[in-house]
Amino acid sequence: MSEPLFGRIALIGIGLIGSSLSHVMRREKLAGEIVVSTRSEVTLKRAEELKLGDRYYLDAAEAVKGADLVIVCVPVGACGAVAKTIAPHLADGAIVTDVGSVKASVISAMQPHLPDNVHFVPGHPIAGTEYSGPDAGFASLFENRWCILTPVPNSDQGATERLTAFWEACGSQVETMDAEHHDLVLAVVSHLPHIIAYNIVGTADDLETVTKSEVIKYSASGFRDFTRLASSDPTMWRDVCLNNKEAILEMLSRFSEDLSALQRAIRWSDGDALFKLFTRTKGIRHQLVEAGQESAAPNFGRENEQGEPAE
Amino acid sequence: MSEPLFGRIALIGIGLIGSSLSHVMRREKLAGEIVVSTRSEVTLKRAEELKLGDRYYLDAAEAVKGADLVIVCVPVGACGAVAKTIAPHLADGAIVTDVGSVKASVISAMQPHLPDNVHFVPGHPIAGTEYSGPDAGFASLFENRWCILTPVPNSDQGATERLTAFWEACGSQVETMDAEHHDLVLAVVSHLPHIIAYNIVGTADDLETVTKSEVIKYSASGFRDFTRLASSDPTMWRDVCLNNKEAILEMLSRFSEDLSALQRAIRWSDGDALFKLFTRTKGIRHQLVEAGQESAAPNFGRENEQGEPAE
Repeated sequence: MSEPLFGRIALIGIGLIGSSLSHVMRREKLAGEIVVSTRSEVTLKRAEELKLGDRYYLDAAEAVKGADLVIVCVPVGACGAVAKTIAPHLADGAIVTDVGSVKASVISAMQPHLPDNVHFVPGHPIAGTEYSGPDAGFASLFENRWCILTPVPNSDQGATERLTAFWEACGSQVETMDAEHHDLVLAVVSHLPHIIAYNIVGTADDLETVTKSEVIKYSASGFRDFTRLASSDPTMWRDVCLNNKEAILEMLSRFSEDLSALQRAIRWSDGDALFKLFTRTKGIRHQLVEAGQESAAPNFGRENEQGEPAE
Repeated sequence: MSEPLFGRIALIGIGLIGSSLSHVMRREKLAGEIVVSTRSEVTLKRAEELKLGDRYYLDAAEAVKGADLVIVCVPVGACGAVAKTIAPHLADGAIVTDVGSVKASVISAMQPHLPDNVHFVPGHPIAGTEYSGPDAGFASLFENRWCILTPVPNSDQGATERLTAFWEACGSQVETMDAEHHDLVLAVVSHLPHIIAYNIVGTADDLETVTKSEVIKYSASGFRDFTRLASSDPTMWRDVCLNNKEAILEMLSRFSEDLSALQRAIRWSDGDALFKLFTRTKGIRHQLVEAGQESAAPNFGRENEQGEPAE
């Protein structure tokens, strides 16, 4: 039998990402031992019931002792405090990474606390569902998904390579970029869509002229697609908004400008402008499907609504 | 054997809705004979290859002769012209309906042409996929979906009841409301979501700082959910925008106001306001799932991304 990639892996935080990592690490035998830590007694108990780790700690400082790899899986707003707590207890040569959806602010919050004898390699697996908590995880979450690493200027090349091997063993493809570019890319592909989805669901919820039961009844005509993103974890998304403010505000401005132009085309019955935009956007979905990032089945392949895939 | 609901049904237009009707009408034996008409020679030929009808006509006027039920399945902007073409050829006592996503403007466009000896009962099945054309149809499209009928003031009660029975036989539940309220409800549950989806995909496509290949690669983080609606039929959606202008502009104004407030909360780091909105919207999805309008599977149940439903 081959050796596991890491002797001891500590998961700090055991929500959707942490628990999914536990499942895939078990399946692929990536860790000699899995140590789980969370500040919530209820969550820690549940993690134990689900057998997500080999040892369990409320105190992250205890959990990281002797770990070769520490994966911080908490909302980005909590990363700095975790780094401060664990810093004095990290093993010499340990690799410390995270899974946060924002990178520059996480680096600013964590790096100053971390000692020179550990390797900090920030990361972000582009994977998730609308569910959260230790029950939500599953081993295939990272399969065929991308994981972005954003090494800091003095990151150790060997550590980055070991972390790359880890994510590849979880089923992901790994890409490396700088933190600022990551934050700009994610602002458009992830943060803006979530904010827009939260906003439209809020707008619909506020109407007086259309009842909530009507919105629910007729949601298959479009609205329901937005409710998935708008049911994501509120703490996670509050922290994303607060920690990638500049890039998000820039994308929101562009979106609003474009929406004003579209609104004007509707008001002035500019059918050609509408047709042109609606045609242009159609091509992008084909490319997502071809890139393996999306299902070609109608209605996302929702149960009982699949029909025959149209070619 | 029981008699079919209608002796002869004419489908004017044979796209996603028309072809799906053909499939379910065959399966449920709802028509003695199905007559298919479309202005496009290519589409008519394809409909014939797919055996969607028993007879095929390029001229809608020929197709409606002797039909007990005429279902107009064309983009809403074309409904008026179809009504004008078929009016002199409709059988005495025929029921004429449509499937358009907008009702008031379709009624204004069609009703003046229709003779007094036919029964006009406008309708709208709340069902669809992002695919279009005669190949896109499938028999189960209308199952467990709502169909809204918007009878005009002088609609014949018996005709409305027969059309209700027809849609129920297609698997739908039928609701009746007035056209103006339909257009307001659909503006929020369907038209606004499509417009927002088209807009965000356009915004992403226009960026200079993030490449299109990056948008595609990392789309699983949220963006891809919008691309489904944004790949819907451009002609259909141009016509919807032009024909439900007032209600759409009202919903767009509300959406933009709400988005400005959200943008302000981000700019001023108002974490409590963000958390409050993000929590409020979470509950709505649960209600959709409970109402049978949505799948509870993570990621909509997309292939290979289902994990274990978290309950």
